[in-house]
Amino acid sequence: MRVGVVDAEGEIVYETTAPSQGLPQGALLEALEHELRTAFETRPDVRAAGVGIPCTIDRERGVAIAAVNIELADVPIRDLLTERIGLPVFIDNDANAAALAEHRFGAALGARNAVMLTIGTGIGGGLILDGRLYRGSTGAGAELGHTVIEAEGPRCQGNCPNRGCVESLASGTALAREALAVAERVPDSGLARVLDGGANLEGREVTSAALAGDGAAKRVLELIGRRIGVALSSFANVFDPDVIVIGGGVSAAGELLVAPARDELAARALPPMNRTPVAVAALGPDAGMIGAATLARLELEERR
Amino acid sequence: MRVGVVDAEGEIVYETTAPSQGLPQGALLEALEHELRTAFETRPDVRAAGVGIPCTIDRERGVAIAAVNIELADVPIRDLLTERIGLPVFIDNDANAAALAEHRFGAALGARNAVMLTIGTGIGGGLILDGRLYRGSTGAGAELGHTVIEAEGPRCQGNCPNRGCVESLASGTALAREALAVAERVPDSGLARVLDGGANLEGREVTSAALAGDGAAKRVLELIGRRIGVALSSFANVFDPDVIVIGGGVSAAGELLVAPARDELAARALPPMNRTPVAVAALGPDAGMIGAATLARLELEERR
Repeated sequence: MRVGVVDAEGEIVYETTAPSQGLPQGALLEALEHELRTAFETRPDVRAAGVGIPCTIDRERGVAIAAVNIELADVPIRDLLTERIGLPVFIDNDANAAALAEHRFGAALGARNAVMLTIGTGIGGGLILDGRLYRGSTGAGAELGHTVIEAEGPRCQGNCPNRGCVESLASGTALAREALAVAERVPDSGLARVLDGGANLEGREVTSAALAGDGAAKRVLELIGRRIGVALSSFANVFDPDVIVIGGGVSAAGELLVAPARDELAARALPPMNRTPVAVAALGPDAGMIGAATLARLELEERR
Repeated sequence: MRVGVVDAEGEIVYETTAPSQGLPQGALLEALEHELRTAFETRPDVRAAGVGIPCTIDRERGVAIAAVNIELADVPIRDLLTERIGLPVFIDNDANAAALAEHRFGAALGARNAVMLTIGTGIGGGLILDGRLYRGSTGAGAELGHTVIEAEGPRCQGNCPNRGCVESLASGTALAREALAVAERVPDSGLARVLDGGANLEGREVTSAALAGDGAAKRVLELIGRRIGVALSSFANVFDPDVIVIGGGVSAAGELLVAPARDELAARALPPMNRTPVAVAALGPDAGMIGAATLARLELEERR
């Protein structure tokens, strides 16, 4: 988890990280409370906390419903944290938070309509429509990663029962899987040297190898980028946005990923949507934290 | 074309139809002008005209940019008609108009967020988001029929360069194509008797045969319904709408089409979106006309 204090201009005035993956639920909440308290001690003028969680959120009840990669299931996290830290707490999906940050301070600045994909272990989505975060009727929408691009494609992961979602075919998990297949098939590839007899590759190892110039890794990223582009053609046709922003860990590959996605979008979408700009996120891994803080500030202002 | 006079409650007080398909552009515009004048003569209190066109629309300039099934290309139809009939004219995509009508008077009444598919020769889309029509940044969005469900599927039709759009796999055109394949393969099927030595089937012949109880026709409609359901799972995950409405000519098949679509959505979408209701449009083939008139009334009110 990434914890910080962010001012009204989106500047980070304090920042720290702490492990979250693999923690049981109670320990996770305790660690979060501890990091929040430490952050507040550095800036006693903090008025609220925003929490972005890679999880389906019930915003009305403030509950984290179901997460793929962390131990949270039906936790009333908003009220629990409010009680523990004594400040107003606001929660949202982490991809929504990232989209808000990129819209206020990053690559979607000034857009009326923007689509954001956060490509990590899964693929999160955020939508800015008519200048505001769009979350759907129950607040669980904007799950852009669970857009089908292959009706009979592979089973998706986590709590998603679908097949052929763009997440199942183009997430960091899919990137690692495709790269592993190449490494096993082509023993003299750069990817095989990264694998070095091991059984697993991580998405970030593939991205690093590609950025270091490895041809096999570049080709895997191009495949993933093209699949992303198929989904982008649907998003362009549906949303006709000012910009599509690609963030998350896999976006560290930059143009190696985004250029093929852009090409596929241009070849597939209807005019004039085929000219929709595709940009790499500007705020990097801080987007979710900046967005969660901004969300808290905006909601606090709305309450007044 | 369907031309009528519609009051503020969505009631049709005059209605007529006239041929439009196959007409060259000049004759089409003349026929439209003639029908509008005739309609206005019946009700001299008409204050504006709304035109819903199966076409990409530039709303700012009032131009019909590119249509698939009628002869319109880069026509400044709003200003042309305003000049000819001497009343304010408003234009929009026909599927947007249908969605507006279903939201104001039909199957999406009271919805905050609603998704509408109009399944005819092609598949049109309309989006009601936060209670208003969503058209995107250039006004050409909500092209839900051009959402990919098979990345390497068949080439789409008209001006769409994409592959495997739901329109290419589940429109009335696709329904007729799939039914023709069955009729040719199974000579003792009801579909073969409808074909009766001819070379073509129409979507409406397939729908009629299915409604009359023909098993082969029913199975083709189920296939099309399941493909629609794949796209609906994406729309449910992305929009988290209160309701999804299915209209257009093919929706005359009713539950024969909608039940398999609903099953596929329920099996594929994330909770809680897997419970999104799917309804057949309530206004039938009048939806586009009622919506175009309602659009004109709303825009006239906004101007005041």
